[in-house]
Order: sequence, then C-alpha cells, then structure tokens
Amino acid sequence: MQKKGDALAVKIHKIDLKQQGAIVTIPEEGFLGDKVKEARTRICDIETEEVKFLNLNLPLRKMIGVIGVATPEKTATGTPGRHGGNMDATVITEGVTVYFPISYDGALFGLGDLHAVMGDGEVCVAGCETPGYVTVEFESLNELAPPWPCVEAKDWLYIIVSDEDVNKAFYEATEVAVRALQNALKLDWHDAYMLSSIAMDLEICQLVDPRKTIRAEAS
Amino acid sequence: MQKKGDALAVKIHKIDLKQQGAIVTIPEEGFLGDKVKEARTRICDIETEEVKFLNLNLPLRKMIGVIGVATPEKTATGTPGRHGGNMDATVITEGVTVYFPISYDGALFGLGDLHAVMGDGEVCVAGCETPGYVTVEFESLNELAPPWPCVEAKDWLYIIVSDEDVNKAFYEATEVAVRALQNALKLDWHDAYMLSSIAMDLEICQLVDPRKTIRAEAS
Repeated sequence: MQKKGDALAVKIHKIDLKQQGAIVTIPEEGFLGDKVKEARTRICDIETEEVKFLNLNLPLRKMIGVIGVATPEKTATGTPGRHGGNMDATVITEGVTVYFPISYDGALFGLGDLHAVMGDGEVCVAGCETPGYVTVEFESLNELAPPWPCVEAKDWLYIIVSDEDVNKAFYEATEVAVRALQNALKLDWHDAYMLSSIAMDLEICQLVDPRKTIRAEAS
Repeated sequence: MQKKGDALAVKIHKIDLKQQGAIVTIPEEGFLGDKVKEARTRICDIETEEVKFLNLNLPLRKMIGVIGVATPEKTATGTPGRHGGNMDATVITEGVTVYFPISYDGALFGLGDLHAVMGDGEVCVAGCETPGYVTVEFESLNELAPPWPCVEAKDWLYIIVSDEDVNKAFYEATEVAVRALQNALKLDWHDAYMLSSIAMDLEICQLVDPRKTIRAEAS
C-alpha cells in the first residue's frame, strides 16, 4: 500500500467532457467580488475544438480543477495545498503526469471540477464548469514524495504551490525550484539561483480561493 | 507636440544585441535575497539563437526591460508605473507595439535594460543583461492615453500594471481588462467579468522591484 513519503504519479490519459458547461457570477465572489451585483449563470455549448460563450467562440482548453490525494487532517475539497486539491492549474490537462506527495496511507486519490476553458487567475471564481469523465493511470513511487504537486508535460516541468499569501507561494516555489535545479544539474546554489532567473517562469493558477495557487515552470 | 492625454505608440522593429551578457547575484537582492551570501557575476555568450550559461544552452528570448515616457514628477529609471519604466515584461520584444499614456508634454521616450533571456519573475533581480541597439518607430495618438502601458503582439494583447502590492496590481489589471472587454464587445459588466475568467490570463512580469509588475493577457 502507498505510504506517507511515497509519491503518487497520475497520468492523465483522456478528459471527455459533456456538451454543455456553465459559468457563473456570485456576489462577493471572485477577484472583483465587491463589484458583483448579480448572481448570473451562462450556459456554454462545448464543441470539438471550441466553447461558445454568448456569440463568442473560445478555443477549448480542457483541464482538471480539483485533483489530489487525502490528508491526515480534514481538508475541504475547495482548498488547495501540498496534497493538490483545488489548484485550478490550466496545465493539468490530457497527456501530463501529476506527482503528488502521499501523506495518508493508501493515497486515496480523487478528482473533479472539470473546465472546458479557464484563464490563469480564474478571476470570476469559475471556469466553464463542465461534467465529464477522466481516464487516469496510477503509479506509486517509493519514498519519492515531492514537496509540492509537480506536473510533467511534454517539454515542461511545473511545481504548483498554494498559500494564503501569494508572495509566500512565489517564494516557496522559487526556493523549491532553485534546489531542484541545483540537484538536477549539480550547480551551486548561487548559479542555480541565477539560472532560475533566466530559465524559469513564475505564473498564476488561481487567485480566488482563500489559498492562492501559483506555479514555477521550466522547460 | 505630444500632450498629456495622448498615447505614444512604439513599434519595436529590431533588437540587436552584442555578443556577451552578464547575470549577477547580489546579497539581499532578488526574491530569495535573504539567502544570497555572495556577489557573483557570470558572463554569457550570446549566439544567433541561444544564450550560453555555464555549460547550458538556453533559447535566446530578447526583450526590453526598461521602456517608457517621462513623468511630471521625478521617477527613478528602476521604477515601473503607468509611464512604463522598469516593467521587465518578457513580452516586450521584436515585432510588438507598446502604447504608453503620455503625462508630460513631448512624451520624452527612453529605453534600456536589454535582456538576451529572462524568466517571468526575474527572481534573482537580473536577466542576462546585454548591451545592444533597438530600432523603434513612433506614432502619437491624440487623446487616446490608455490607463496603463499596453502591448499589442501578433495574436495577443497585454495590459501591464505595477504596484507595491502584487494583489492590487492584479485587481487593477482585472478591472481594466473587464472594462476593455465590456467596451470592445458591447457586453454588460457581469458577462465581461465571466469572459475575463475564461479568456484572460494573469501573468507575472517581475517580482523583485519595490513595485511589482504583472500583466493581463488575452488573444
């Protein structure tokens, strides 16, 4: 059985979405919550390569909002953290592998909160929320728990960090990334720090949950 | 003459870099400044498509760190703001047009701080700092001052906002972007807010100056 300290690798083979999604505004919710006067729902048709919002066609960008493993303490599904959870990372999509640190025996994986399209930030508190099915494949890696969820895509690696204070999340992600560059390339810390400044991008996942989520990415 | 309230459009035709750049660490500087024990300089060779850092080859990503117009009050070159300045936006590169709000008669454009490569965040406080020449073309647009510098690339539009508090910068950029979507597409505010949540990405420019710089981007 998977034990604390192991990593769970989850390969995302396929995201099959239904043909309709919804996006909402809710008073007091989202990044401009103080300006939202009305609860409103818009239904969007999902086509093979596009999402229809009103009379606009947006490119389909399928992604998984909530994905993670269980924690020893009670954790709300809507809360992101080291276990994963509601990270709302647009990079978690078909073809990538996500690595989670296991902190509860058995891992107890779960996912949900599928989006047909969402922007980095998820500023109104919702993407195009769409029901669907996801096909995944698991592997457990003995004693290889990463400090935070990591995503391996074709040409990119991402470290995904969440914190109430977005600056602390950026600091933590940078520190982890510099250590990772240091170990992977046998650099001393100062050279790894310089390299992170020219080869790593800090980007936003979501800014609308009590814990914000960001990512460090490098190719 | 260009007057307060006009926009200055600056088309970046060409960035010609010299063949060497430098990157540094400085104690107390950068995002992990508290961990920097040593001032160190690394010289990087700049080739046609690559930058050499130690034994690593990084793709060349030419950009302009400081670019802007004059302000009525004294402003340090290292400070970003509505006038532009030290925004360190990786998207300001060959082929784009940058629009600045003019607040001082005559505009008094300037640029510098060229980088051969830099990551979003510029975490160690430097990119690969490289001397060079930039060829630009100006146009002034009567009474069309944008609220913040904007960048027009082939398929993307960016709004670039700076503030001491990165959360305030994100809030301001989102508000400006929602208003822009509202006006451009004749949407009401709530629909524009939803659209910004699925069609706009919030990203980082730099996190290491006293004023942080971020961008909202949409295609």
